[in-house]
Amino acid sequence: MKFTLRARVASEFLGTALLVAAVVGSGIMAERLAGGNVAIALLANTIATGAALVALILTFGPISGAHFNPAVSLADAIEHGITWPHALAYIAAQCTGGIAGTILAHLMFGLRWYSISSHPRHGPSQVLSEFVAAFGLLAVIWGCSRSRPGAVPFAVASYITAAYWFTASTSFANPAVTIARCLSNTFAGIRPSDVPAFALAQIAGALAATVLFRWFAPELPSTAEQVLVPHSTR
Amino acid sequence: MKFTLRARVASEFLGTALLVAAVVGSGIMAERLAGGNVAIALLANTIATGAALVALILTFGPISGAHFNPAVSLADAIEHGITWPHALAYIAAQCTGGIAGTILAHLMFGLRWYSISSHPRHGPSQVLSEFVAAFGLLAVIWGCSRSRPGAVPFAVASYITAAYWFTASTSFANPAVTIARCLSNTFAGIRPSDVPAFALAQIAGALAATVLFRWFAPELPSTAEQVLVPHSTR
Amino acid sequence: MKFTLRARVASEFLGTALLVAAVVGSGIMAERLAGGNVAIALLANTIATGAALVALILTFGPISGAHFNPAVSLADAIEHGITWPHALAYIAAQCTGGIAGTILAHLMFGLRWYSISSHPRHGPSQVLSEFVAAFGLLAVIWGCSRSRPGAVPFAVASYITAAYWFTASTSFANPAVTIARCLSNTFAGIRPSDVPAFALAQIAGALAATVLFRWFAPELPSTAEQVLVPHSTR
Amino acid sequence: MKFTLRARVASEFLGTALLVAAVVGSGIMAERLAGGNVAIALLANTIATGAALVALILTFGPISGAHFNPAVSLADAIEHGITWPHALAYIAAQCTGGIAGTILAHLMFGLRWYSISSHPRHGPSQVLSEFVAAFGLLAVIWGCSRSRPGAVPFAVASYITAAYWFTASTSFANPAVTIARCLSNTFAGIRPSDVPAFALAQIAGALAATVLFRWFAPELPSTAEQVLVPHSTR
Repeated sequence: MKFTLRARVASEFLGTALLVAAVVGSGIMAERLAGGNVAIALLANTIATGAALVALILTFGPISGAHFNPAVSLADAIEHGITWPHALAYIAAQCTGGIAGTILAHLMFGLRWYSISSHPRHGPSQVLSEFVAAFGLLAVIWGCSRSRPGAVPFAVASYITAAYWFTASTSFANPAVTIARCLSNTFAGIRPSDVPAFALAQIAGALAATVLFRWFAPELPSTAEQVLVPHSTR
Repeated sequence: MKFTLRARVASEFLGTALLVAAVVGSGIMAERLAGGNVAIALLANTIATGAALVALILTFGPISGAHFNPAVSLADAIEHGITWPHALAYIAAQCTGGIAGTILAHLMFGLRWYSISSHPRHGPSQVLSEFVAAFGLLAVIWGCSRSRPGAVPFAVASYITAAYWFTASTSFANPAVTIARCLSNTFAGIRPSDVPAFALAQIAGALAATVLFRWFAPELPSTAEQVLVPHSTR
Repeated sequence: MKFTLRARVASEFLGTALLVAAVVGSGIMAERLAGGNVAIALLANTIATGAALVALILTFGPISGAHFNPAVSLADAIEHGITWPHALAYIAAQCTGGIAGTILAHLMFGLRWYSISSHPRHGPSQVLSEFVAAFGLLAVIWGCSRSRPGAVPFAVASYITAAYWFTASTSFANPAVTIARCLSNTFAGIRPSDVPAFALAQIAGALAATVLFRWFAPELPSTAEQVLVPHSTR
Repeated sequence: MKFTLRARVASEFLGTALLVAAVVGSGIMAERLAGGNVAIALLANTIATGAALVALILTFGPISGAHFNPAVSLADAIEHGITWPHALAYIAAQCTGGIAGTILAHLMFGLRWYSISSHPRHGPSQVLSEFVAAFGLLAVIWGCSRSRPGAVPFAVASYITAAYWFTASTSFANPAVTIARCLSNTFAGIRPSDVPAFALAQIAGALAATVLFRWFAPELPSTAEQVLVPHSTR
């Protein structure tokens, strides 16, 4: 590990902030322009999110591994990729970074700096969707990283692009992003009372995939930094 | 081959399940949101499917070769890439996995766990389309794998993205996926009585491409795992 | 060169046929579904064409260089990449392959096997557009191939994706494809009387870029096969 | 550095001209076809711009580094990647190339060769958006280039694709492109009186990211040519 914990935590903060700014900001722009056609709005939101993931994972991956997601840091700590204290520092940076991203998006679009979402997202279908979304995300991370770590930024971005459409919840798949999105009463928002069930389903899905891939592919590399963006040249 | 047959069969099951969940689920979401514009719905369905293929082939390719398709396993057995008993095990996993994917998509969207499609897809144009769709898919697999096996996930996903639009049938190109889609009376469905002609046309197209590329490029590598995702580092 | 001329010519025929089938077929599908919104139709046509180019250049590049385009074969012969007799054989295969692609698209969509387009595309703006389109295409081929031949499939596909929108003619940029498209009275068609000016502008643009890049970057590799898809492993 | 300053300056001129032609031209086409739905128009404009960036950075990167942007050349000079006199020559080529691109787009679409935009883009939200847009662009360039210079064309194109939607200003992020766009009273235009605040915000954002990444990752390679497209084979 070449980077200090301080630099890595700053990387997780900044990367998660820009990711949430992309998710929330593109949702605001898309809804404003789409003339009421929700499919067009979600398509724009999807393309912006997928493209942001490619750029941000390539940018911050070499510094901190580009987790941007407490479920990923948790799974990585379980697999001994990072220590538990580092995982906790990562998670704190992700949650605060995500909230900063929501605020940034609001300021860029001339909105009040925060607003509480009234967008209901609940019920068994939504919760199952989040379990599946996070299960698939971790499956992609553990599976792809085995043979082609350099392709992980593209695999993760492609996965989320697809999952925005194939899950009923539009695939939050990330507790820090879920918290940040409850502070925005816009296209991408989620009602605060629906956050806990989403976060629990996400963590459960991530853990299920981690256990499955331990059985599937026990020769996995054990550090997230190797997994997400390899330091070795490509 | 590093992985046991059991792990490889599980990989084919899980990968095909997630692929069908992506196809069927994104079709449901797209139709719900598109406000009656079928082009927008198919565009969303296309982008979700193409992105899912990139992610899933990168994820499961190193374990089982990421066939997800009986026509591919059949062609691979003919080319001596896998043994016939293994091909049969793969095909069983793909067919059951596909059905599981349909059920999963239905549960995520709060629908009954299965429904019989009433979507007619028949006639010579549709059958010719499936022949062409599968011919092109196998051409891409055999052609691309010769010099750039690492690019196969992108080549296959790009091909299917295009074929959703340039074939009249929206390019099923996969008997297991076709069977799974007849169990969903949604956007991506197909009437059960139309399945046999689709499956036969797909197998015929796959075999035609396999024969052609044997003449074209006889120095093809002979194992599907090398073909689809190489174990050698990239 | 590992492949016989016969295999290479067959590769150009088949690749151009599938490329034109993708362009014409996706145009038919897009127009049928788009409900009169031409932007949505062109967006679908664009995505299908760009994705087809990625897949087909990766598939046929290792065999024949994946020219699919008389302007490319001409420029390559001028740069001594292929001999003139071989260039003529390539061009014949591209022109007949393109026509076969139009016929295939019509059959897949249940249309008469050919129809003469009545779509006017003429005037100085259109002709300038085709000059620019072909100039840019050859610039991308010569420029990108110098340092990163493995990226050429993605560079060419990305270029055409952009050029569908930034030229007024939607960037035919290919005399064989232009001829093939005059035989389809559908979305992608062009009136036969407008073909000669398009073809001349395309050839002029290709030659201009070739001359410019000879000055710019004289150390270019001299064979098209090295340029388009390198035989060296990636 | 293999190329003469003259060739490099010509590369910056030509690349910026084609980039602006893509931005302005695709805006004209998109607005003409979109039937009043601004989201569809911006989606087409976004896809064309992102795809053009992939193609043009791959094409001109090996010659001049593919800056196409005074903010990038300025940041690179500060980091001692290029000398100040070379940076000034680059910036002059970018500004004149951008204007040439606007003129080329107008001629391709049969419009008068220039027109003064009346599209207002001002206020604190817009200016903040440009600061964030340029900050993120330089973050991507400095961050990604450290470990994976070969991925920079894809990272930059993905970033701009996302930023078109997540900033309120649609992410100009480039003073030369901003100047060029004030000469086009079309979809992509900007009122001349709004240009100075945009340009200043862009330069401030670029500098902020450069300073931040110097702290973050001091072992950055110091030349832009290495950063943007490496000469070493991939």
